[in-house]
Amino acid sequence: MEFSSLEPFILKRKALQSTLALWSFDSDTRAPKKAIENSAKIMGVLSEEYFNLINNKEVIELLDQVETTTDVQKALVKEWKTELNMLCKIPKDEYVEYQSYVVMSQRIWNEAKNKNDYEMFKPYLKKIVETQKKFASYRKVGEESLYDILLNDYEEGFNTEILDEFFNKLKEVIVPMIHKIKNSNVKIDTSFDHLSYDIETQKQVNNELAKYIGFDFDCGIISETEHPYTTHFHNKDVRFTNHFYENYLSSALFSTVHEGGHAIYEMGVSDELTLTPLGEGKSMGMHESQSRFYENMIGRSKGLWNNFYPTLQNAFKEQLGNVSVDDFYLGINHSKPSLIRIESDELTYSLHILIRYELEKQMINGTVDYDKLPEMWDNLYEKYLGVKASNLAEGILQDVHWSGGMLGYFPSYALGSAIAAQIFAHYQKTIDIEHLVEQGQFDVIKQQLKNDIHQYGKMYSTNTLLKNMMGEEFNPNYYITYLVDKYSKIYQL
Amino acid sequence: MEFSSLEPFILKRKALQSTLALWSFDSDTRAPKKAIENSAKIMGVLSEEYFNLINNKEVIELLDQVETTTDVQKALVKEWKTELNMLCKIPKDEYVEYQSYVVMSQRIWNEAKNKNDYEMFKPYLKKIVETQKKFASYRKVGEESLYDILLNDYEEGFNTEILDEFFNKLKEVIVPMIHKIKNSNVKIDTSFDHLSYDIETQKQVNNELAKYIGFDFDCGIISETEHPYTTHFHNKDVRFTNHFYENYLSSALFSTVHEGGHAIYEMGVSDELTLTPLGEGKSMGMHESQSRFYENMIGRSKGLWNNFYPTLQNAFKEQLGNVSVDDFYLGINHSKPSLIRIESDELTYSLHILIRYELEKQMINGTVDYDKLPEMWDNLYEKYLGVKASNLAEGILQDVHWSGGMLGYFPSYALGSAIAAQIFAHYQKTIDIEHLVEQGQFDVIKQQLKNDIHQYGKMYSTNTLLKNMMGEEFNPNYYITYLVDKYSKIYQL
Repeated sequence: MEFSSLEPFILKRKALQSTLALWSFDSDTRAPKKAIENSAKIMGVLSEEYFNLINNKEVIELLDQVETTTDVQKALVKEWKTELNMLCKIPKDEYVEYQSYVVMSQRIWNEAKNKNDYEMFKPYLKKIVETQKKFASYRKVGEESLYDILLNDYEEGFNTEILDEFFNKLKEVIVPMIHKIKNSNVKIDTSFDHLSYDIETQKQVNNELAKYIGFDFDCGIISETEHPYTTHFHNKDVRFTNHFYENYLSSALFSTVHEGGHAIYEMGVSDELTLTPLGEGKSMGMHESQSRFYENMIGRSKGLWNNFYPTLQNAFKEQLGNVSVDDFYLGINHSKPSLIRIESDELTYSLHILIRYELEKQMINGTVDYDKLPEMWDNLYEKYLGVKASNLAEGILQDVHWSGGMLGYFPSYALGSAIAAQIFAHYQKTIDIEHLVEQGQFDVIKQQLKNDIHQYGKMYSTNTLLKNMMGEEFNPNYYITYLVDKYSKIYQL
Repeated sequence: MEFSSLEPFILKRKALQSTLALWSFDSDTRAPKKAIENSAKIMGVLSEEYFNLINNKEVIELLDQVETTTDVQKALVKEWKTELNMLCKIPKDEYVEYQSYVVMSQRIWNEAKNKNDYEMFKPYLKKIVETQKKFASYRKVGEESLYDILLNDYEEGFNTEILDEFFNKLKEVIVPMIHKIKNSNVKIDTSFDHLSYDIETQKQVNNELAKYIGFDFDCGIISETEHPYTTHFHNKDVRFTNHFYENYLSSALFSTVHEGGHAIYEMGVSDELTLTPLGEGKSMGMHESQSRFYENMIGRSKGLWNNFYPTLQNAFKEQLGNVSVDDFYLGINHSKPSLIRIESDELTYSLHILIRYELEKQMINGTVDYDKLPEMWDNLYEKYLGVKASNLAEGILQDVHWSGGMLGYFPSYALGSAIAAQIFAHYQKTIDIEHLVEQGQFDVIKQQLKNDIHQYGKMYSTNTLLKNMMGEEFNPNYYITYLVDKYSKIYQL
């Protein structure tokens, strides 16, 4: 059977996927407030169409029958089958019941967080974890643990063994380093960051920054939401959102470079793939590597700010007139253990993830006393970061992920940072990336990332991409070296 | 067969319809410029899905088999069958070929307009007209003319006989009136309208005006495009666009009240209907009646501006400080024959439509020499309005409609104005509408229109709605009386 028989289904699948992304972006950014009830019904119908298409009998037969002659065709069939496998192993009634349970669970989590009431959320968390375990068990084929099955969903080829090694190395190095920083004589002043900054001016500067690092406004737009994120309909329409705080200048700036990194990834997917199931960034970890690469390796570098700081300073003469670029650089790179993951600095970030990883592993693979979870959370924060939550919103109820059934997702955040450091080390050797940043040659950097990673969309796994690029699979040592070097210099350790 | 078997198809149909509307609105208002090629492919797939659903074999059988017990159910089945009838009488290959021909034809029209070259567009116009005639002939069942079939598509129950009578009455009264106004001693100063008005301030004032007349920002948003229009996804998400000119204040103001009228209609459709094929305004004429009602009867009234002018004056103190509300009222109601339909005043507007109606009628029902069309256009403008186009963009190539195959559409603009006047006359008698406008009680007016018209969506025809409302079907005399009264006062005739 000709591969072309599959093509109408491929395009229809993309049409539904992009349509769902459009409805949700529209709903998040500008739909009127009373629209949601009717619009949710519409989105429900379209989601069902999407799932029916993945699961379509004719498609399933075609997937086994079509001749695949190119790499793209082979990868495409594999991708579809993977998604099919995730869906069709779960009995439909269980799946549907779970979908509505998740909606409820997220609502309850939100209420519990506001009311500082863990008891309220506890039964939901327990049921979500149990259901995820059950669903994973339907897909179990070999000796892998249930948590490994979930980890693999978000990052193909990664499992507890690799992550244990990764996180152990991290904590061995980072935890003592945090103590040294605490006792360092270097004290960094970040007060400039919390002066009053006009929001309209912030928007203009952030647009310039996005353009400067390579976000193409002919292929994307920037909008606003409570929490920044990136979405895409295809490679010529990629959108990210930001959130502007009057008294927190760096928040929007680093959302711009972070989400900008995600967006540049999606814009770099090849035209051949963009309207297919392979037409987007590979995995959570790989995506996060691109956003962290732009946010941290480039976005917090001296090179970038030597060039861009005058623009920022000029927009905010009153607030930044007396802050030198060196002081600004130190300000955006200071490190201090804190309680909230999404506000944490580059050095301590992965310890927040480590804590969630340790808890998830116990919830899925072991037995956990749900009554003790809040305490376990607090103890781990005390142990690794030396800080203690004063309420549950800073503690066990901090993140939305578990209430939405996203177990196995957190590690990809830390993996992303580590992959970013590995790519950066490679580019230091091969293209003298620091020099390119100093010269403002972001087009060259973007083109290199496109050649090495972006163009391939979902065709290759993270390890294959890294191997093809630098002859080496994932290796966390680059990340550790990067962090130690950077923070030793900043804090003169 | 239970009616409920049809329900999944009804919701899916609405989902696809609203989705297409969302893609197009997004594309018009904020999609990045290079998105269109890929997004058009996505929209193509979704349009095809939509047409396949209308034409779906299972649905067609269900339409004949389901038991309809309520008025809504009966109207729903009828509506679906009407649309089906329009589609399935035309051989699919002819339909598909025509669709792409239309895209090309619109592109050529645009180019021809820019180049002032009628010869370039002539063969396209001829083929579009011939195809529309052929398609109409497939649907011909009785003695009606082909043009009547097309007219009925846009306004059920209306035909050449009714429109001839309507337009004849109009020209008998309006043409001499235009001459009298030309010789009137009243000279109206409109220079205030073309001073410089800050666009951001215009936006704020227009938002206030939209809110003032009853546009509900919880159920809709306002955006910007080259040409203003209104769209909707359901009754809780209705959107209109505006266009702001620095040197033309009244343009955006009257787009706000015009599009606001369309939007209020869509917001008033009942919750029961909104997610069904009946969930939108009835017809082109009925829709235009609501926009004209808000634009002209309310929007150009002394009562409204007595209340709202201080807000406008306050926003533009420098420009309007010395312009009294009486002078402003005269300025927005001055009448002067002109060449461009969409810029023409309330009195002369229908003559622009009359000219297009006379030409369409000849093109469809009679024989027309396509070489002579530009001259015929110019002669009619000279005859009815006493003005002469200096180029084809002001003449035969002015409007996009014919290039897009919209023949029979123009009359609904004039019908809309006439229906608006008829409704207004009824409300003068029954609810003292002028007093309500003076009191700023727009909620009462909106509720009355909802009760009489909006709530029913597409359930009833224009004539049924009018009959139920005031015991009388369409009657153009109210419109003529309204125009004569209004302009006799303004120009002291």
